[in-house]
Amino acid sequence: MIQIGDMVTLIGPRGKFVVKVSSEMQNIKNLGVVDTGKITEKDYGESINIIDQDYIILKPSLSDKLDALQRKAQIILPKDALQLVGMCNIQSGSLVIEGGAGSGALTVALAHFVAPNGRVVTYETREDFAAVTRKNLAMAGAEKFVELKIADVTKGFDEYDADAVILDIPNPWNVVTHAWKALAPGGFFAVYVPTMNQVEKIVSELRDNRFIEPKSMETLQREIVVGNGGVRPSFDMLGHTGYITVARKIL
Amino acid sequence: MIQIGDMVTLIGPRGKFVVKVSSEMQNIKNLGVVDTGKITEKDYGESINIIDQDYIILKPSLSDKLDALQRKAQIILPKDALQLVGMCNIQSGSLVIEGGAGSGALTVALAHFVAPNGRVVTYETREDFAAVTRKNLAMAGAEKFVELKIADVTKGFDEYDADAVILDIPNPWNVVTHAWKALAPGGFFAVYVPTMNQVEKIVSELRDNRFIEPKSMETLQREIVVGNGGVRPSFDMLGHTGYITVARKIL
Amino acid sequence: MIQIGDMVTLIGPRGKFVVKVSSEMQNIKNLGVVDTGKITEKDYGESINIIDQDYIILKPSLSDKLDALQRKAQIILPKDALQLVGMCNIQSGSLVIEGGAGSGALTVALAHFVAPNGRVVTYETREDFAAVTRKNLAMAGAEKFVELKIADVTKGFDEYDADAVILDIPNPWNVVTHAWKALAPGGFFAVYVPTMNQVEKIVSELRDNRFIEPKSMETLQREIVVGNGGVRPSFDMLGHTGYITVARKIL
Amino acid sequence: MIQIGDMVTLIGPRGKFVVKVSSEMQNIKNLGVVDTGKITEKDYGESINIIDQDYIILKPSLSDKLDALQRKAQIILPKDALQLVGMCNIQSGSLVIEGGAGSGALTVALAHFVAPNGRVVTYETREDFAAVTRKNLAMAGAEKFVELKIADVTKGFDEYDADAVILDIPNPWNVVTHAWKALAPGGFFAVYVPTMNQVEKIVSELRDNRFIEPKSMETLQREIVVGNGGVRPSFDMLGHTGYITVARKIL
Repeated sequence: MIQIGDMVTLIGPRGKFVVKVSSEMQNIKNLGVVDTGKITEKDYGESINIIDQDYIILKPSLSDKLDALQRKAQIILPKDALQLVGMCNIQSGSLVIEGGAGSGALTVALAHFVAPNGRVVTYETREDFAAVTRKNLAMAGAEKFVELKIADVTKGFDEYDADAVILDIPNPWNVVTHAWKALAPGGFFAVYVPTMNQVEKIVSELRDNRFIEPKSMETLQREIVVGNGGVRPSFDMLGHTGYITVARKIL
Repeated sequence: MIQIGDMVTLIGPRGKFVVKVSSEMQNIKNLGVVDTGKITEKDYGESINIIDQDYIILKPSLSDKLDALQRKAQIILPKDALQLVGMCNIQSGSLVIEGGAGSGALTVALAHFVAPNGRVVTYETREDFAAVTRKNLAMAGAEKFVELKIADVTKGFDEYDADAVILDIPNPWNVVTHAWKALAPGGFFAVYVPTMNQVEKIVSELRDNRFIEPKSMETLQREIVVGNGGVRPSFDMLGHTGYITVARKIL
Repeated sequence: MIQIGDMVTLIGPRGKFVVKVSSEMQNIKNLGVVDTGKITEKDYGESINIIDQDYIILKPSLSDKLDALQRKAQIILPKDALQLVGMCNIQSGSLVIEGGAGSGALTVALAHFVAPNGRVVTYETREDFAAVTRKNLAMAGAEKFVELKIADVTKGFDEYDADAVILDIPNPWNVVTHAWKALAPGGFFAVYVPTMNQVEKIVSELRDNRFIEPKSMETLQREIVVGNGGVRPSFDMLGHTGYITVARKIL
Repeated sequence: MIQIGDMVTLIGPRGKFVVKVSSEMQNIKNLGVVDTGKITEKDYGESINIIDQDYIILKPSLSDKLDALQRKAQIILPKDALQLVGMCNIQSGSLVIEGGAGSGALTVALAHFVAPNGRVVTYETREDFAAVTRKNLAMAGAEKFVELKIADVTKGFDEYDADAVILDIPNPWNVVTHAWKALAPGGFFAVYVPTMNQVEKIVSELRDNRFIEPKSMETLQREIVVGNGGVRPSFDMLGHTGYITVARKIL
C-alpha cells in the first residue's frame, strides 16, 4: 500500500526521518545512502532493515513533520501552534491568512487542520524564508492547501471573509485595520510576539478598533520522564517562546 | 442570514451566552426572558438590544462552546484538549475513539477537528454523564460527528482502524491491548491522567506492548493581563490539570 | 520551660494558631476562650487539650509567624521574601533598609535573618499600615531588631553604610539615588514589583546609575499533594506575585 | 581596608571571579596571572586594572560564592537552598545537620545563615565529595561554622537537639527515625529529592512517624530579560531540580 512518491516516517537507532519513497537510491542526512524503494514491500507499522538496523515505518504525523522541518527563522513550537489553532476556531474549511511565513512551521500546522476543504494564504517578505517554507510544505504534503505570497502584510491583504488572520511579525499593530478588512464578522485576529511590551501595544490597538474580547496568554510545557529511578519532570525546558493574543472582529 | 434554529454567541454586560435562535420566548439563565427570534434581523458581528443592554452576536466558536458546556464531571481544559488533538495527529476525516466521555468537553473539541468527514466514537459507562454529554453535543452542533456508546472501554472496542484512542479514565493501562486492536498501524494512543503514578504505570505498560515513542508532558497556561498599571501575568492560574501521554501503535 | 509571656504555635483540628502564653483567660479567634497558662506545664512537642481537642505545642517558626500575620496590604509571600534575603546576601548582623513596610511580612522575615546582631529599618508612609506592622512585629517577637519610621523613601534615607535597601513600592526608580547614598559599597538594592513595565523602568534606571549586575526574576511555587490516589501537583497555585530585581552599588 | 588573605569578588569583561588577595602572583583560571596584592590599595566598590581590563572589586556575597563553587556532584540551586533555609526556620545560632554534603553548595548557604553563633554538621560518605566540599568551604570562608564528617547518615547521627536535619540523599526514608532522635522537639526534617516517587515514599514515612505537617513543593524560577526590544522571560530555564519536603518533629 505504500507507494513510490509517498512520504514516510522512519524511526530507528539513528533517530526519526521523514523521507520520500523513491525508486532511486537517496543519500539521507544522518542515515546514509538508502534504497527507499524497498519500503513499498512493507506496510505501515512494520519495520525495515536499513544499513543493518531496523526502522519502523509510519505515516508522517503532524508532529513528525514539524520535527523534520528545515529551519531558517525561529519556528513556532507545537504547543503554541495548537493554541493558535484552537483559540482561532480553525477547522476543516477555514480560510486562514498568515503573516510572516518564516520557515513555515505554523503554515504546516494550519494546513493540517484546514484540509481538505480550507485554505491557508501565507505572506512573507523575505525570499529566503519563502524558499524554506516551500521546501517544508512539500515535505509535509501541504502545498495544495497553501498559497504563499511574497508580500508585506503591513500593506494590506488581498483576501476577504477570512476566518482568521494570524501574525508572527514584530509590529502586528500596524496590521490591525488591514486584518479587520480581511476578516469575516466574528473572525479571529491572533498575534504571536515575544515581549510583554508588544502584548501591551497590540492589546491597546485592538481595544481602539472593532475587536472584542482580546485575550493574551503564555503556554509552558514540560516533558515528564519515566525512568528506572522514578518519575520526574524533564530538566530541559524552554523558559519562554512567545505570548499569544487573540480577539474577534465585530462590526 | 441568521435563521431560526441557529446557535449564536451573545457577548455583553452580563457575560457570554451560547443560545439557540428560536421563534418562541426563551428563559435564558443569567440573562432573562428573551425573544431570540429578533436575532434573525441581524448579521453576525452586529449587536442587538436585550433587556436594555447591547449584546454582540457571533457564530459560536470552539472556545465559546467549551465555555458554555454544562459540567457534571471535571472537564478537560482547552489547553490540554488542543495538545491531545495535535499530538494525536487528528484532523478532518479522522476516526477517533474516546474513552470516558465525562461531560463531553473533549468530545466537542474532537468533533470540531474531525468534521466534516471524520467521526468520534465516545464510550461512557455512566448514564448521567452520557446525558450531559448529549446535551453538550447538541448545544455545540456536534451530534452528527459523534456516536455515544454506553459501554466500558476495559471490555474492548467495537471499532477497527481507528486513527486515535484517547482515554480520560483512572485505569487506562487496562485498555492498552484493546486499544492496540482498535487502532490502525501507526495510530495514536493517548491518556490524560492527574497523577505521576498513573503516568509511570501507563508508560511502563506501553513499553511492554507494541507501542512506540511514549511521550508524557504537562502543559501550563497563564493569562497575561494588560491593565492601566502595565502588563503582568494573571494572579489566577490552575496549578495542575493532568498529564498527557501519547504513543503510536506498531505491528 | 515554656513560660508566661512566651509565644507558642498550637496545631490541631481547628488549624494553626500563634498565641501568647498568659496567666489570664484569652478569647482566641476561631479557637475559643482558652486558659493558655496551662501550656507552662507542657514541653514543646507535646500536646495539650483545648476545649476537648488536642493541640501540639511548638515554638513559632518563621513560617508560622508569616502565616499568622494580620494583613492589611497585600503581603510578600515566603517564596519571594526568601529570594530577596538570599539575593541580597542578608545574614546575622546585616543592616537592611526596607521601603514600604506594608503589613510587615517582609519586615518579619528580614528581622529573623539579621538577628541577633543586625537591624532592619523600615519606612512606611501610611499610619494604618504602620499600626498593623507594629502588631505583627510584636506577635513575631521581632520588635527589638526593627525600627519603624513613618516617612517617605522618595525623600531619602537617614542611614548610611546599609547592606541592603529593599523596596516594595510602586515607583522604586525615584529612590535609586537615595538608595545609592544609603548603601555601603557593594550593598544590594532590590525591588519587588508586579508588572513587566516596572521591571523595565527600574532596570533602565539602575543601568544609568552606579549599580552593577541588575538581575530580574520571577519565582513560581507549587505544592505537591500526596494522596491515596498518588502524587500530583496541587490544583491551587498563585499564577503571579511579583518580579524581583537586584543590583549592587559600585563607586 | 582590603587586606592580604581576604576573599574578594572581581567582576569585569571576562566574568566574575572569587579570589584570595595574596602577596604572591596567582594564576587564576580564565583570568590569567594576576598580582592580587594590588587590590589592597583599593576599596570595595572601586575598580582595578587587570591585564588591561577593569574589574570591580566587591566583598563576596552568598550568590558570588555559590556561583564560584567547584562542582563535583550536582549542586542545589540558590532557589531551593533558600526555600530550605526558610522553611526550616534556620537563622543565626541554629544547629543544622546536613546529610549528603555533595559539593557543599547547601553547606555554604547554611553556614551563611547560622553564622556567627550557629553550627552546621555535614555528613558525607564519599571522600572525593568531602574534599571538594572542604575546598568550597575554604573559598567561602565558611569552615569555622561547619563540621564535616565522613559518615553514613543511615547509620545515625552523633548530635542531639538539632534545629534541623536536611537530607540530599537518594533514600531519606531510611533516616527518618535517626533524624527524629537528633532533632529538638519542633525541629525540622527536610529532604530534597528529584522524583515524585521519592516524595511519595518520604511523606508516607513521615506520616507513620512522629512528624507533623509534612509539606512538599517545587520551586521554579525564570530570569526576566530587559533588552532593547522590550521585556520578556529568558528562553533559558531549568525545567526541574528537586522537590522539597519539610515536616516538624513532635513528641
